[in-house]
Amino acid sequence: MADSVVVFSGGMDSTVLLAALIHEKKRVHALSFDYGSRHNKREIECARAFCRENSVEHTIITLPFVNDLFKSSLLQSGTEVPDGSYMEENMKSTVVPFRNGIMLSIAAGLAESVGAAEVAIASHSGDHFIYPDCRPDFNHAFAQAVLLGTGGKVRVKFPFAGMDKRAIGDMGRELGVDFAATWTCYKGGDIHCGTCGACDERKYALGFSSGFDPTSYSIPDNEIDNP
Amino acid sequence: MADSVVVFSGGMDSTVLLAALIHEKKRVHALSFDYGSRHNKREIECARAFCRENSVEHTIITLPFVNDLFKSSLLQSGTEVPDGSYMEENMKSTVVPFRNGIMLSIAAGLAESVGAAEVAIASHSGDHFIYPDCRPDFNHAFAQAVLLGTGGKVRVKFPFAGMDKRAIGDMGRELGVDFAATWTCYKGGDIHCGTCGACDERKYALGFSSGFDPTSYSIPDNEIDNP
Repeated sequence: MADSVVVFSGGMDSTVLLAALIHEKKRVHALSFDYGSRHNKREIECARAFCRENSVEHTIITLPFVNDLFKSSLLQSGTEVPDGSYMEENMKSTVVPFRNGIMLSIAAGLAESVGAAEVAIASHSGDHFIYPDCRPDFNHAFAQAVLLGTGGKVRVKFPFAGMDKRAIGDMGRELGVDFAATWTCYKGGDIHCGTCGACDERKYALGFSSGFDPTSYSIPDNEIDNP
Repeated sequence: MADSVVVFSGGMDSTVLLAALIHEKKRVHALSFDYGSRHNKREIECARAFCRENSVEHTIITLPFVNDLFKSSLLQSGTEVPDGSYMEENMKSTVVPFRNGIMLSIAAGLAESVGAAEVAIASHSGDHFIYPDCRPDFNHAFAQAVLLGTGGKVRVKFPFAGMDKRAIGDMGRELGVDFAATWTCYKGGDIHCGTCGACDERKYALGFSSGFDPTSYSIPDNEIDNP
């Protein structure tokens, strides 16, 4: 029996969230989704390894219809992932329509089924500009819908909604998270590309310019100014 | 390009909804889900036939994880479907946790992907007692979450939220819906059982006691008083 079903991609944010909940002695049930993004395979390898090492119950759900039917450059069926800063307009092509709503709905149904009173997701303030389903007003409405739609049984929590990715990186370092065993790059290659918006933000979060980032990047020193 | 993505089970309510939207000359994209209920197979046969006959674009999405992981007597993996009135306490075992939230989330993502500004679902006032994710407060919060989470692109509509199943039956008759080609029975046998809560409500809706119901029931005359 779990206290919390955690949406767990295997990326750095959700890995820190899971580590934080484990640190708080919560019984967690990690839930990963393979929805056909270019980087799902790499993320899920990381998620699987973390759960194995930390004896966390782990469910992986595949959603092939997303890649088959939805439009996004993040998907294998999509156009190319853009390079550049996470905050640029062209990063909007990486939106997977209502992705967080879909993941959270399934997590809510699973939570009710396994008797967990909480669902947690690691969306954060750095996501707000690009992804509408990561913003505080969405979070509030969705949590309300889940509470009502489960007859008061499940609450959705967004513990990182007020933090940016740098603060999440700092928290993870304090918790002893091995960031080299997490995946961020949207391109899903052999190593992190270092040039896509997601890598760009990872560098900022992990303090690449100060030498704190343990990630191997294909192109480490690109010319983007981080916020 | 569709105006509306319609959650379409092949049951009588969503068939009437689809017929009504077609009557209004809306361009509809029907979306059916096979989530492993006992009656999905029978429902989807009806859904497929309706869409073929009415030249409606039809997408069927399978969600095998629901039957594998969720708890409900409606599922093939669940305990037996209870007999009796739809309004009885024991019918609560047929709740599939957050089912409408999951279906609506996926419908919202598909709608945004295909450029449809609307998602419609046929949940109605007769569902309110048993299913929390059919009630007006859920509907309102969820529609708000979808509007926000799609950046204002998709609105969720619940055209039957203020109607009971009898009113839907009457509307369908006016629209010329062939109810014999719709499926309701939760047990998913060769013909409608006539004794489960869903059959009980279908009889009420279609005016069985007045001779208006064209359905073949395995046990037509059971002793339940309808509301």
